[in-house]
Amino acid sequence: MKVVAVLYPDDHPEHHPDVVASAARGLDLADHLSAAGHELVTTSDTGEQLDRELADAEVLITTPFWPVYLDDDRMAKAHHLSLVITAGVGSDHIDADAATARGISVTEVTGSNVVSVAEHNVLQILALVRNFVPAHRQVAEGRWDVADATQEAHDLEGKTVGILGLGAIGARTALRLKAFDVTILYYARHRRSPAEEAILGVRYARLDELVRTSDVICAATPLTSDTGALFDAERLATMKPGSWLVNTARGAIADADAVREACESGQLGGYAGDTWYPQPAPSDHPWRDMPRHALTVHYSGMTVEAQARIADGVREILAAHLAGEPLPDDYVVAAPQE
Amino acid sequence: MKVVAVLYPDDHPEHHPDVVASAARGLDLADHLSAAGHELVTTSDTGEQLDRELADAEVLITTPFWPVYLDDDRMAKAHHLSLVITAGVGSDHIDADAATARGISVTEVTGSNVVSVAEHNVLQILALVRNFVPAHRQVAEGRWDVADATQEAHDLEGKTVGILGLGAIGARTALRLKAFDVTILYYARHRRSPAEEAILGVRYARLDELVRTSDVICAATPLTSDTGALFDAERLATMKPGSWLVNTARGAIADADAVREACESGQLGGYAGDTWYPQPAPSDHPWRDMPRHALTVHYSGMTVEAQARIADGVREILAAHLAGEPLPDDYVVAAPQE
Repeated sequence: MKVVAVLYPDDHPEHHPDVVASAARGLDLADHLSAAGHELVTTSDTGEQLDRELADAEVLITTPFWPVYLDDDRMAKAHHLSLVITAGVGSDHIDADAATARGISVTEVTGSNVVSVAEHNVLQILALVRNFVPAHRQVAEGRWDVADATQEAHDLEGKTVGILGLGAIGARTALRLKAFDVTILYYARHRRSPAEEAILGVRYARLDELVRTSDVICAATPLTSDTGALFDAERLATMKPGSWLVNTARGAIADADAVREACESGQLGGYAGDTWYPQPAPSDHPWRDMPRHALTVHYSGMTVEAQARIADGVREILAAHLAGEPLPDDYVVAAPQE
Repeated sequence: MKVVAVLYPDDHPEHHPDVVASAARGLDLADHLSAAGHELVTTSDTGEQLDRELADAEVLITTPFWPVYLDDDRMAKAHHLSLVITAGVGSDHIDADAATARGISVTEVTGSNVVSVAEHNVLQILALVRNFVPAHRQVAEGRWDVADATQEAHDLEGKTVGILGLGAIGARTALRLKAFDVTILYYARHRRSPAEEAILGVRYARLDELVRTSDVICAATPLTSDTGALFDAERLATMKPGSWLVNTARGAIADADAVREACESGQLGGYAGDTWYPQPAPSDHPWRDMPRHALTVHYSGMTVEAQARIADGVREILAAHLAGEPLPDDYVVAAPQE
């Protein structure tokens, strides 16, 4: 059996002993697979070289941080493919309907990095609201301009935070924000029970109300046909002037040019997150040099601890597949009909 | 009566409507004081020009963010000075013993920015542990090197955070960290009660134990003879290799060169905070270009909301002084013996 793993490159693996989810390390799967008589190919290529490798592959491992955009055309050329594993959470880079129609199962390592991303949400909310990036930049610039640092610096205390989607990441974000004495609104397709709402310290709001009344909005929802370009120019215009938007969910939830324009005009007080579209973000992506941003490259769900959990989960999925056993239910995103 | 207010400069007050604590705005005290027949002089000078102004001043307003280092020599030249107000919290820039011996009361706006600084502690702890600054820098540099961003990126979950000093800021920091599933140690001269420890989610530890076992140390203690240069080369060497240090308390709690060396060697995984010594930090301060830092200029207690609270408190202290009434007890740092 041939397994192809498409992972981000690492130019200096000798300096990165804890980075196991790179192409250089291949989630440390090689020994395990070769001992069982299987072949592992690792690459960072997502173009023609990958197509050639996929021609006779049975399993594809891909990751949201360096995604293979796997559409029906590409699957049509991978005749033996029967399993795709997302090394992480969020499999929107895979056309799941097309996959299952072709007999391919789509899986991901559910839960592996939800705490990591929730922590990043809190970090980036605080960074925007408190004007961290400009105040940090003054250090390297040799400046000490307190007035300039403070004009845009606010306390989070007393603000209204709106969380879009209250799944594993959104709920963990709410729990961590609760002690900051904020009002937390959430919008989700399914309301939580009153008991859960009380534990999380959240109040349900319709999407329009949440967008109109929040000082900070945090997107924690999967990318679906409902959420694609959800933050377009029209919706950004309905946000409170000067409010902040954090999107660690998926870059395509926001319209890139509209976000840039809102940051330039000040309609957005700032934009952060770590997801982009496409990924890797091109060097001329409109967000790279826009004002008022606290973006990072997509890595929040790839902490050293998350990588270890992801590697464990991928091994678990592979082991079930190799043994011909059912895939662990909680890891299955979409499966072909029996 | 003459009031001298030494506040940070603002080169563009027309762009900073919310910055009231600058020399340009003078905490919006001018109208109030002149209506009562008093004189207000605002300046950012902390040298000879200030000495000239102090010669006939009765009240000095100064701020930790742009401090007047008020020693006995300087007070000797201010014959009419009877009240010093720190516009903020932390009056270590004033020799309180010398002041009271000269009949000068020392006050500060207790509580005015403790939430602001506690939020900054959480922000900067997350920034260091999650390797935010290098991952953000990649955006402007046109890079997408996930491996490089992640080698030093960790989850806060499961780590041990040691808080030095568990006063108003330290306790609020602990409360905000509790939901992150961390172990929180604290060291303080006075232990909290078991009930308070349970509410805050903290466990008491001796200083040596806290330093030796914490993954992150957060300084939240005043600068005193006990805490000056507390983090010298010797103590930094006893910290866990690669651990992180956040100091929003006072720059002089850490030895500047020793911190730089620990960041260069990797003994410190990173250093953050926003307090420096002296302030304003000179453009060649050793922290400005050291590796692994997430420092800002000193502004965390000067958010827009904090400035409004500070201005209110200064007005309250001044009003009592002008009316010849006792100064509000909770604002008094040191008072002359009756």
